[in-house]
Amino acid sequence: MTPTVKAILANYESDNPGVKANLYRMLMQGRLGGTGKMIILPVDQGFEHGPARSFAINPAAYDPHYHYQLAIDAGLSAYAAPLGMLEAGADSFAGQIPTILKVNSSNSWATGINQAVTGGVDDALRLGCAAIGFTIYPGADDVFDMMEEIRELAAEAKSVGIATVIWSYPRGGKLSKDGELALDVGAYAAHMAALLGAHIIKVKLPSDHIEQKDAKKAYAEFDGSTQAKRVAHVVKACFDGRRIVVFSGGAAKGADAVYQDARDIRDGGGNGSIIGRNTFQRPRDEALAMLDKLVDIYQGAE
Amino acid sequence: MTPTVKAILANYESDNPGVKANLYRMLMQGRLGGTGKMIILPVDQGFEHGPARSFAINPAAYDPHYHYQLAIDAGLSAYAAPLGMLEAGADSFAGQIPTILKVNSSNSWATGINQAVTGGVDDALRLGCAAIGFTIYPGADDVFDMMEEIRELAAEAKSVGIATVIWSYPRGGKLSKDGELALDVGAYAAHMAALLGAHIIKVKLPSDHIEQKDAKKAYAEFDGSTQAKRVAHVVKACFDGRRIVVFSGGAAKGADAVYQDARDIRDGGGNGSIIGRNTFQRPRDEALAMLDKLVDIYQGAE
Amino acid sequence: MTPTVKAILANYESDNPGVKANLYRMLMQGRLGGTGKMIILPVDQGFEHGPARSFAINPAAYDPHYHYQLAIDAGLSAYAAPLGMLEAGADSFAGQIPTILKVNSSNSWATGINQAVTGGVDDALRLGCAAIGFTIYPGADDVFDMMEEIRELAAEAKSVGIATVIWSYPRGGKLSKDGELALDVGAYAAHMAALLGAHIIKVKLPSDHIEQKDAKKAYAEFDGSTQAKRVAHVVKACFDGRRIVVFSGGAAKGADAVYQDARDIRDGGGNGSIIGRNTFQRPRDEALAMLDKLVDIYQGAE
Amino acid sequence: MTPTVKAILANYESDNPGVKANLYRMLMQGRLGGTGKMIILPVDQGFEHGPARSFAINPAAYDPHYHYQLAIDAGLSAYAAPLGMLEAGADSFAGQIPTILKVNSSNSWATGINQAVTGGVDDALRLGCAAIGFTIYPGADDVFDMMEEIRELAAEAKSVGIATVIWSYPRGGKLSKDGELALDVGAYAAHMAALLGAHIIKVKLPSDHIEQKDAKKAYAEFDGSTQAKRVAHVVKACFDGRRIVVFSGGAAKGADAVYQDARDIRDGGGNGSIIGRNTFQRPRDEALAMLDKLVDIYQGAE
Amino acid sequence: MTPTVKAILANYESDNPGVKANLYRMLMQGRLGGTGKMIILPVDQGFEHGPARSFAINPAAYDPHYHYQLAIDAGLSAYAAPLGMLEAGADSFAGQIPTILKVNSSNSWATGINQAVTGGVDDALRLGCAAIGFTIYPGADDVFDMMEEIRELAAEAKSVGIATVIWSYPRGGKLSKDGELALDVGAYAAHMAALLGAHIIKVKLPSDHIEQKDAKKAYAEFDGSTQAKRVAHVVKACFDGRRIVVFSGGAAKGADAVYQDARDIRDGGGNGSIIGRNTFQRPRDEALAMLDKLVDIYQGAE
Repeated sequence: MTPTVKAILANYESDNPGVKANLYRMLMQGRLGGTGKMIILPVDQGFEHGPARSFAINPAAYDPHYHYQLAIDAGLSAYAAPLGMLEAGADSFAGQIPTILKVNSSNSWATGINQAVTGGVDDALRLGCAAIGFTIYPGADDVFDMMEEIRELAAEAKSVGIATVIWSYPRGGKLSKDGELALDVGAYAAHMAALLGAHIIKVKLPSDHIEQKDAKKAYAEFDGSTQAKRVAHVVKACFDGRRIVVFSGGAAKGADAVYQDARDIRDGGGNGSIIGRNTFQRPRDEALAMLDKLVDIYQGAE
Repeated sequence: MTPTVKAILANYESDNPGVKANLYRMLMQGRLGGTGKMIILPVDQGFEHGPARSFAINPAAYDPHYHYQLAIDAGLSAYAAPLGMLEAGADSFAGQIPTILKVNSSNSWATGINQAVTGGVDDALRLGCAAIGFTIYPGADDVFDMMEEIRELAAEAKSVGIATVIWSYPRGGKLSKDGELALDVGAYAAHMAALLGAHIIKVKLPSDHIEQKDAKKAYAEFDGSTQAKRVAHVVKACFDGRRIVVFSGGAAKGADAVYQDARDIRDGGGNGSIIGRNTFQRPRDEALAMLDKLVDIYQGAE
Repeated sequence: MTPTVKAILANYESDNPGVKANLYRMLMQGRLGGTGKMIILPVDQGFEHGPARSFAINPAAYDPHYHYQLAIDAGLSAYAAPLGMLEAGADSFAGQIPTILKVNSSNSWATGINQAVTGGVDDALRLGCAAIGFTIYPGADDVFDMMEEIRELAAEAKSVGIATVIWSYPRGGKLSKDGELALDVGAYAAHMAALLGAHIIKVKLPSDHIEQKDAKKAYAEFDGSTQAKRVAHVVKACFDGRRIVVFSGGAAKGADAVYQDARDIRDGGGNGSIIGRNTFQRPRDEALAMLDKLVDIYQGAE
Repeated sequence: MTPTVKAILANYESDNPGVKANLYRMLMQGRLGGTGKMIILPVDQGFEHGPARSFAINPAAYDPHYHYQLAIDAGLSAYAAPLGMLEAGADSFAGQIPTILKVNSSNSWATGINQAVTGGVDDALRLGCAAIGFTIYPGADDVFDMMEEIRELAAEAKSVGIATVIWSYPRGGKLSKDGELALDVGAYAAHMAALLGAHIIKVKLPSDHIEQKDAKKAYAEFDGSTQAKRVAHVVKACFDGRRIVVFSGGAAKGADAVYQDARDIRDGGGNGSIIGRNTFQRPRDEALAMLDKLVDIYQGAE
Repeated sequence: MTPTVKAILANYESDNPGVKANLYRMLMQGRLGGTGKMIILPVDQGFEHGPARSFAINPAAYDPHYHYQLAIDAGLSAYAAPLGMLEAGADSFAGQIPTILKVNSSNSWATGINQAVTGGVDDALRLGCAAIGFTIYPGADDVFDMMEEIRELAAEAKSVGIATVIWSYPRGGKLSKDGELALDVGAYAAHMAALLGAHIIKVKLPSDHIEQKDAKKAYAEFDGSTQAKRVAHVVKACFDGRRIVVFSGGAAKGADAVYQDARDIRDGGGNGSIIGRNTFQRPRDEALAMLDKLVDIYQGAE
């Protein structure tokens, strides 16, 4: 164990050795192992957008094994997916890459702002997962129900040595569309995930918009002019850096934008990227090249 | 065990020997045993349409024993029905045909798009069933509740060695009537069933309509001009063929149409048919003849 | 055990000896014991209509003991009532008459079409009951909830050797007032009770009205001109006679009408009557005389 | 044990010795011990109306000990109160007076016609209570939920030897304001409490109004001209006197009215009074004098 | 143990030694240890208002350790916070300061008047907490649900020796904005918390407004002209002083106002302050100085 990882694990003061071992597995895995940085491959697009919109552009990705292998070959930190996707490769790749079972899911036809609980801690245990992943929608009418679901799942997971990752995506209710990506909103959403007991917090990269009237004063003197500074603010909102924070890449976009995002995350003190469509929707060689460069960036080489 | 069945079972990487043994029972049963193809007889029409609409045309079918015997005599792979129907022949036909307990059901008078949970894993165990069957209505307002129900039932079933079959029927919400049978919608619905951890996925044969605006681009270059190609797409959406997919026959129709459907399912790489009204609403002799020919088709003989 | 009862019990293929023993108790009890016919005394009118409307006309019936004694003295098959009614005589009449605990109840002031669960299998066990009784309202908005309640109660009851009686009363939703008693609706309702796993099904005597447009074709050639023929159709809808079906007498009416109903039930192959207000709202002597005659009818003497 | 108490206990045919012992404790307690009559002190006004409206008029009553002591000094049968009130004196007065834990409660600001469950059988056991108390609002939209709550609580209580008292207060839905106190409504409400398995039923003294159209015929020849006759009717509605029925005093009023109520309850065969505001909102001396006289009345001395 | 603390603990008549030991820990902790007075530091502002509005003014407070250390260095009685905040320092500060796990939380974007349950008794046990904290909103549509949640949590907490603190904040429903702080409303809210079985009750300092028409008579002769007298009334409403009552400081305000509040709480017989924003939103030195003075006030020195 490197001193960096040791320092990170020391922040998880209340966790049992089982949870710490699973955080360790993710932090020591792959090419970023030991650096305190992480790149996670999430493949829940099939639920969110359906199979064709997710995989037709790169048909090899219809096969669940493809994603396991991509994460392993790219030397990533972990692979996150819903139940069926993990089940379909759980034995072939057992032990080769830490997995995160995404235990709730939405889809393109949802008529409310919520998700279905589609996996459990029992599933995570039998599949050998390192963590469960759960999305909350702060701002939505149903967010209290979602919080109560993750409270119960996280307590159960912690009791059996499984780590908890919370995707915190503000949406609905009083929030404007721009507000979903606002800096104050993103920092608040990340903070709520931390308060809920998440070990790893996943949020979107925030814009420099300030959404909440009541928060404007608190940001009056804040310099959010660069993305790195905004990342640093989100990290601060996660217990002053005592929790691992990773940022999502969003829709597929140009490679340079992806690299710049990673540099900003790194420079702002974020722990890494959770990057899905930008990899599995590219041909495998391109994806591996992109991930190679992202690893370099997080290693400080670029 | 044939190599074909062995290869299919190998795809169920996370399942315990109990579940695999029940999948094996269905795959090795009857005249298609060992081929990797299946024909399942489902008799839940009594719930869906009532007894007279289901059985008056062939009154012998009022008797639950009729259906067990039909499935056995036709050499089918399994027989699926709600609780009472299975209970009424559970002892007489014990072991002679794998059974699937349909654990949720709707009816003609339903005022919402949902089903009642009318059976449980405990029932499946005491009746010696090989699997539970469950319907979800992707698109409906209540689909998250339905998904949470099958998530719990499937986890319990897997823990005691019972397989899970999901009927995935898009309906309600934002979907148009045509959209319920659209290719993109059907593939998405099948994919969601796979993500929910189904061992066997049952969907309707899709039309060549594309329903979702956001999906049109993904299908721009897709050739869906034949039913076999559309079947192949749905199979691909089920983890690139790592899950068994069977297609339903729909309302009673001409025998030739039924045969053509089966040829398309076979040619598209589907695993078979789940065919109810087209058999039990015909006289027994005609039904046996039709099933005989379907078996031949799946064996590649026609 | 008579061959008739033996044949009836043989239809309950999935039930354990405990459930069969309780069905046996009811089928061998009283003056119709061994004939395969039953007369059940139900006294849930206190919940449905209140005490005065139920008992003021025959004040002795305010006393719960009155009904136990009436059922015993008339040589009936079983006595069905809500929790408090059974508790109040459970010791005095222990073993003298099989009892059915009605585990859900409505009342005259209900603002929705549903019932409250007011008893449980644990209550049935401690009171020595042979069965639980439960009402469903097929057609009502809440019927899925009711079905899920009886599914759980029935599974628990079966596991501890208690039989299940389902009162299936179509009501609400898309059904017209006439439709509640329609032949197609009644047969469908009875069939749903059978599918839910009921051992004994209680429905109302159907009229010759056909309610559902979609069902008209199925009844096009059906001769429903006599009540006996309509009874026979309902019996057929209950797994071709593999389930015990009893018919309710409805509101208090002339004795001759009650007798004719019984003859029609008998001639149509129904298993008997569940008759409440027509007995306990008459003076005891008249009620005993009426029940005596009903027994004679079911014995084929009249 | 007196023959009167023995006769009352004999009516609780289904109860275990634990429940009977707790009924015995209340029936043998205090100055009415052995007479079959009871006076219960209920102090849930703090929940219903708030502390100042309840206790400012007699500030000593702010102290929970005051009520325990009042019940003991007046020689009453039992003391009923919500969780916190009982906890605050549970040790000081342990064993000196049977207590009834009121396990649901409403308040003046409630926006629906329902109550919160604020105590449990586990609480009753640890506080040494003789019974739990629960309010239902027959007529209200939520009454099925309330009935299901008390069904579960009562079953649990009975299994551990705790008695059940049901406050049955018609309210809401189709009932008019006058109807809440109507004779037919009160008798119906009392009967429903009995059917739910209550050992002790608490209702309000009924007026001579008949609320339900459908019930008018049943009351056509009933003489409800005196309060004693109306009490007798309610008692008859409670299984012909097989259940203990006590009547509430309502808002604080003149002492003579309170005494006359008690005489009517006694003459009508009711088991006693549950009297709160009329005692603890008077100075202690006056309250003791009033209770003294009420005891005399129930003993037949006045 | 001082006689004062002994007298306070004696009021908790129904509690087991585990709960009493935890109350003892808080009452004997820090500079007010033994006096019967308490100052509690609550830091749930991150949930309520977000991180920037809470901590930007004093950035050191982003770090959860800051608050533990502040509470310890100021010699306070306890530190209260949501799950993640406590987890982040649970090991570093184990045993140094009693902690209260806030087990429900709202946020600025809530679309209903309710909170999410975000912690449990199991969490409190594994984190070594002395108590759980829970907010109810008397008056709100959802308050019955909230009451049922705390009833279950409190029962569980009591069974394992954890104390219960209830934040009782009237809000919603029939209450006006002014009414939320009204004297009658505040006393009623405090009383309800006591009835729910709280060991420690937290309310806001009440104004002299009387909100409820029905309560005006009860307050007709009450002298609520000073804040101390109003505090005394709230204390009286909490079982005549048999429960610990602490008052919240509200939004950050001038130091003199804070001191005056504390004097009024002290003079009215309240048990102390729960003071958050007024401390952690000031620089640490100022906060320590303020807390030092507050301690002096509660010790009677100022």
